[in-house]
Amino acid sequence: MTTIALDALGGDLGLDATVEGAAALSREPSDIRVMLVGDARRISERLAKVSYDPTRLEIVDADGCVRMDEDPRRALEEKPRCSVLTAAGLVADGDADALVSAGNTGATILASAIRFQRLPGIRRAALAAVYPTEQRHGPKKDPFALMLDVGATLQAEDVDLVGFAVMGAAYSSIISEIVAPRIALLSNGTEPNKGTDAIKAAHKRLIGGPLNFVGNVEGLDIPRGTVDVIVCDGFLGNVVLKMLEGVSEVFRDIAKQASGRKLQWKMGLAMLGGGLKRLRRMTDWKAYGGAPLLGMDHVIIKAHGRSEARAIRNAIKVAAKAAEGDLIGRIEQGVGALGLAEAESRSAE
Amino acid sequence: MTTIALDALGGDLGLDATVEGAAALSREPSDIRVMLVGDARRISERLAKVSYDPTRLEIVDADGCVRMDEDPRRALEEKPRCSVLTAAGLVADGDADALVSAGNTGATILASAIRFQRLPGIRRAALAAVYPTEQRHGPKKDPFALMLDVGATLQAEDVDLVGFAVMGAAYSSIISEIVAPRIALLSNGTEPNKGTDAIKAAHKRLIGGPLNFVGNVEGLDIPRGTVDVIVCDGFLGNVVLKMLEGVSEVFRDIAKQASGRKLQWKMGLAMLGGGLKRLRRMTDWKAYGGAPLLGMDHVIIKAHGRSEARAIRNAIKVAAKAAEGDLIGRIEQGVGALGLAEAESRSAE
Repeated sequence: MTTIALDALGGDLGLDATVEGAAALSREPSDIRVMLVGDARRISERLAKVSYDPTRLEIVDADGCVRMDEDPRRALEEKPRCSVLTAAGLVADGDADALVSAGNTGATILASAIRFQRLPGIRRAALAAVYPTEQRHGPKKDPFALMLDVGATLQAEDVDLVGFAVMGAAYSSIISEIVAPRIALLSNGTEPNKGTDAIKAAHKRLIGGPLNFVGNVEGLDIPRGTVDVIVCDGFLGNVVLKMLEGVSEVFRDIAKQASGRKLQWKMGLAMLGGGLKRLRRMTDWKAYGGAPLLGMDHVIIKAHGRSEARAIRNAIKVAAKAAEGDLIGRIEQGVGALGLAEAESRSAE
Repeated sequence: MTTIALDALGGDLGLDATVEGAAALSREPSDIRVMLVGDARRISERLAKVSYDPTRLEIVDADGCVRMDEDPRRALEEKPRCSVLTAAGLVADGDADALVSAGNTGATILASAIRFQRLPGIRRAALAAVYPTEQRHGPKKDPFALMLDVGATLQAEDVDLVGFAVMGAAYSSIISEIVAPRIALLSNGTEPNKGTDAIKAAHKRLIGGPLNFVGNVEGLDIPRGTVDVIVCDGFLGNVVLKMLEGVSEVFRDIAKQASGRKLQWKMGLAMLGGGLKRLRRMTDWKAYGGAPLLGMDHVIIKAHGRSEARAIRNAIKVAAKAAEGDLIGRIEQGVGALGLAEAESRSAE
């Protein structure tokens, strides 16, 4: 059994998404148990309206939650028993194997920093996101690749980028089941001398090392999906990821406008069924289950704030898979192979 | 009459694109005259195969050109009479009003730096690109917005970003005929305190000033086209622009694969005609004519290396419009209004 602590109050849709997602998962065959963390009375009421397997769901009471628009630091100080801190505490205490939250991103990161330990050799945390690509990845032929950091560490130094590469490789190898994921730095050209100072220095540290580092990739390679893991700083990753989201929105808008307008369009869309579905799936990365927050000594999955039940269910499954695949152990191995922990302790002397 | 000096040998397609593009334009009613700069014999031979208006085309001989894969600095040193340097010289000497090249980007930037003067108050040059957006812009309802820098200045300081804002506003006001283009900084959030140090400082310099500065925009706003001009450093702009190009490629690939496969698909595509055309146009920014290189005392348009005749023709028209609209004068006005030249001379003391 793998146990997931779910922040049941986080996310734009609150209990409607979290309780339904967890309940749906409990009805499927799996070894996953979910602790629904939040206002016990409200969770019970919501659960009474859906069917679920009571042996695989548990309610853990918490007091309050961090709203999406609240200042995370102040909110966590004022509400020490809120859902995300309580859920993180269950993981830290060994009652659960991983944390899942669709709530305020800053609060999830901060709650993790409070309850968990930073992994030795990893100076800065990274939020990684899967995004849709044209090319397939790994033995499961996943239609997505991984990018990190997408928002935890705005300005990253070379050693931080190397840490991201280690963590991205570990996560990709578990989730996409790729033995040696192809890792690249995102830059303004493929040549090793292209990029910011941090990128050029990270390139030197990664080339010829234990990871399957294939060099720099460009913006073109993002949608193509030339590599399995793209490494960049959180500022660039944030802009790129939100831009992909924007492209997806625009695509949906145009399709919606067009299909609402004409019978001819509706017929055309029906005929194009398969191809459009492929395009749509490529832009529907919310299906892929959320972004891991990497760099701590426990598995943390941040689901999208707008997650519906299906996205919550997928985030729980991804969290369980990462925990079962020993994500933390694999990151520690990578840190060891690259000598990051020794480098850190030397620089601390 | 507006005269454009065209680097006839630059670009992947060479004379096939440049001579045909210039010839096509000469057959249309306009006040534009083109100087085709390159190997005079080869240009004449190529011209003999197309129809054109000889009163609006002139050949200027040059010796050699910079290939796309050459090191720009070395190539320009070794070939001082090459097409791009000769064309830039014609503009510097007042024989032509603007330079257009589809050749090696580095060579175009370097040739401009050699032949032209940097504008006082503008510390760093910027390459600006128009890209397709969902929202329309200005009285002409242009389906594109402007982004700069996309590759001339990799790491920009706050004053550089302010200079880019001034130049982008001037260019957008001429090309899209917008009286006060909406300018924004690209960041990881809309709040003034979001972004890198350079972005936060540039925000302070721009807010409440003479430009129509609307604050920060996020990645989501790029495809939506929320503003008319997006300002960022050349590293970020390069990644974003190439990514848009990649998205466009992927879209075309999928449509092509699908339409080649099934009769049903072909019928569906035919029925969707208008809507798909809109999607395709949105991703076909090469139609918009090339990227201005801003910061020098003359108009320079860098056309895409893969430009075909139509793209060359559009680049020439854009260059003429920028020259006729007094792009340089408008940038100087903006520099004056923001006090950039005074700031520069103070910091030089």
